[in-house]
Amino acid sequence: MLKQVTLGAAVFAAALSAEPLAEQAKATGMAPIPQNTTELYKLIDNPDNPINAEKVALGKQLYFDPRLSKSGLISCNFCHNLATGGVDGVPAATGHKWRHNPHHLNSPTVYNAVFADRQFWDGRDPDLEAQAQGPMQAPPEMAAAPEHVEAVVNSIPGYVKAFKHAYSNPDMKPTFKDVADVIAVYERTLVTPSRFDRYLDGCDKALSDKEKAGLKTFIEKGCVSCHTGVAIGGGMQPFPAVGKYKYADIGDFRGDKNGMVKVPTLRNIDETAPYFHNGAVWSLKEAIEIMGETQLGIKLSPEDVASIETFLKSLTGKKPDVTFPMLPARTDATPIPDLN
Amino acid sequence: MLKQVTLGAAVFAAALSAEPLAEQAKATGMAPIPQNTTELYKLIDNPDNPINAEKVALGKQLYFDPRLSKSGLISCNFCHNLATGGVDGVPAATGHKWRHNPHHLNSPTVYNAVFADRQFWDGRDPDLEAQAQGPMQAPPEMAAAPEHVEAVVNSIPGYVKAFKHAYSNPDMKPTFKDVADVIAVYERTLVTPSRFDRYLDGCDKALSDKEKAGLKTFIEKGCVSCHTGVAIGGGMQPFPAVGKYKYADIGDFRGDKNGMVKVPTLRNIDETAPYFHNGAVWSLKEAIEIMGETQLGIKLSPEDVASIETFLKSLTGKKPDVTFPMLPARTDATPIPDLN
Repeated sequence: MLKQVTLGAAVFAAALSAEPLAEQAKATGMAPIPQNTTELYKLIDNPDNPINAEKVALGKQLYFDPRLSKSGLISCNFCHNLATGGVDGVPAATGHKWRHNPHHLNSPTVYNAVFADRQFWDGRDPDLEAQAQGPMQAPPEMAAAPEHVEAVVNSIPGYVKAFKHAYSNPDMKPTFKDVADVIAVYERTLVTPSRFDRYLDGCDKALSDKEKAGLKTFIEKGCVSCHTGVAIGGGMQPFPAVGKYKYADIGDFRGDKNGMVKVPTLRNIDETAPYFHNGAVWSLKEAIEIMGETQLGIKLSPEDVASIETFLKSLTGKKPDVTFPMLPARTDATPIPDLN
Repeated sequence: MLKQVTLGAAVFAAALSAEPLAEQAKATGMAPIPQNTTELYKLIDNPDNPINAEKVALGKQLYFDPRLSKSGLISCNFCHNLATGGVDGVPAATGHKWRHNPHHLNSPTVYNAVFADRQFWDGRDPDLEAQAQGPMQAPPEMAAAPEHVEAVVNSIPGYVKAFKHAYSNPDMKPTFKDVADVIAVYERTLVTPSRFDRYLDGCDKALSDKEKAGLKTFIEKGCVSCHTGVAIGGGMQPFPAVGKYKYADIGDFRGDKNGMVKVPTLRNIDETAPYFHNGAVWSLKEAIEIMGETQLGIKLSPEDVASIETFLKSLTGKKPDVTFPMLPARTDATPIPDLN
């Protein structure tokens, strides 16, 4: 996976150089989603859980299967909806029994999550395999005991057969970890190349002049010092929990033990309102303004804000074609859902 | 639309005749989903809301769009999940704020709903256009005021443009009724031809000998007197609310004002547990037994129950290929969801 590096001084040096803008952007650490399939797979694959077509197909089914949850109603896609930019579009994740995330945390997009250095707002998990185990169990999300997930999957012959194929193991009895692993494999494929990637790859016409001007502002003002790499985000950064960061006090989230918070990807940002860890801001312009104040310590002019917004909209990418999976039927051995 | 006729005496006459079994089945009123597209469209179309490709595509987007709901979280597909037989797989429909249907009513499948004579368990609506307006507004389902639905749709340029195209009306400002209408058009296309249809159409090998024996039992025991037509159900029948119908007292549902209840379709019945208006029974065998007792007044032998179940499983149909729709992004004019 890409190791993301933040290059404070280099950012500004690049911004002032006479290099072509795309080269400047790359010099700051911004990187395209590879067009070449082999390169892309090298970037998204996990050697401990290698991608294959059977895992992707099975992972997609499980990603969309609400029966993994305690209630039988909440699938991964409920909070990370592939139809709406990979998010749920509400401030705080809401799931089992209509409970909300106890720290008032917003559901991050699943699209391009594979490119992040860490998972969760406090970066506590290293990869999607570890991440996928969390929401399945979290009481306000899917609220399922690992034993419930295992009982559901093992009670449905279509799933057991698919696991055996995917892992070339005729004796396989899928565990909770196996379920999380194939869901993660599916999620690894959810990447959305955009016009910006073509621009970085050398196609000058892929961005309009206004979008290029926005990219220049984005670099010069220093946004790129956190929003960089392939994810255009995804690293850990200090989290100013007091003072100007006016939304820090919604919920009780204070970042990780060192006060660090994960930088959200800016890919598809136009589709993933509301913004910030607490989903407190609905307008992209307002979000840009606040980030200027709290993270960069500058007051961005309305023109700068508009220009950056124009660039950010060029990051809306092409979503993978998703054939909605038809799921194998329950059997008399499948646990009965528990809505309480 | 098909007018469904129940032919009490004819059922038994047909059952005793020397006609080939498929002909007997048709003589009782059972009818196939037409293979011929022109015939099928004649059957599923509504002259007051004619099908066209643009309405189908737009209706699919809206069917999957949770932003139509008050909370922004509940789409039509939440309770009528196309991935799981067109149902939610829980006893009582559950939606906004985790409320349950106040009469403890189970979500019927959307697949083949177009073939039903009436919509809702009490048959109060004549067609899918009328039906689709209900759950969008119902407080324990999507809980949306019509004005909310209209505000959402009109705030998203991609939707307004799609309505204008679908209705060839460049001045269109979509109303709540228009939204329900295009959703209904999409639902009209959700039909699932099965091996049983090919059998009725003359392909004797489409059913196994055991399935044919099950069909014979189904006819001879009288199940077909209610479960008939193309829907293999979908008409209104007396609802024995007392005595042997042991689940009548869950919730307070008593059928329509004449004590009639809608007969569920048996298509895809193997995928749509739990069963009955109150979702009280999880086992298909148990459901068959109880229907024998309460609706037919007979005690079916375990062999008869197993035989009927074998036939019913042949009604699992081929689902339409569903490309998961990517939805146009919200704008600053889109109402902010209200989770309360």
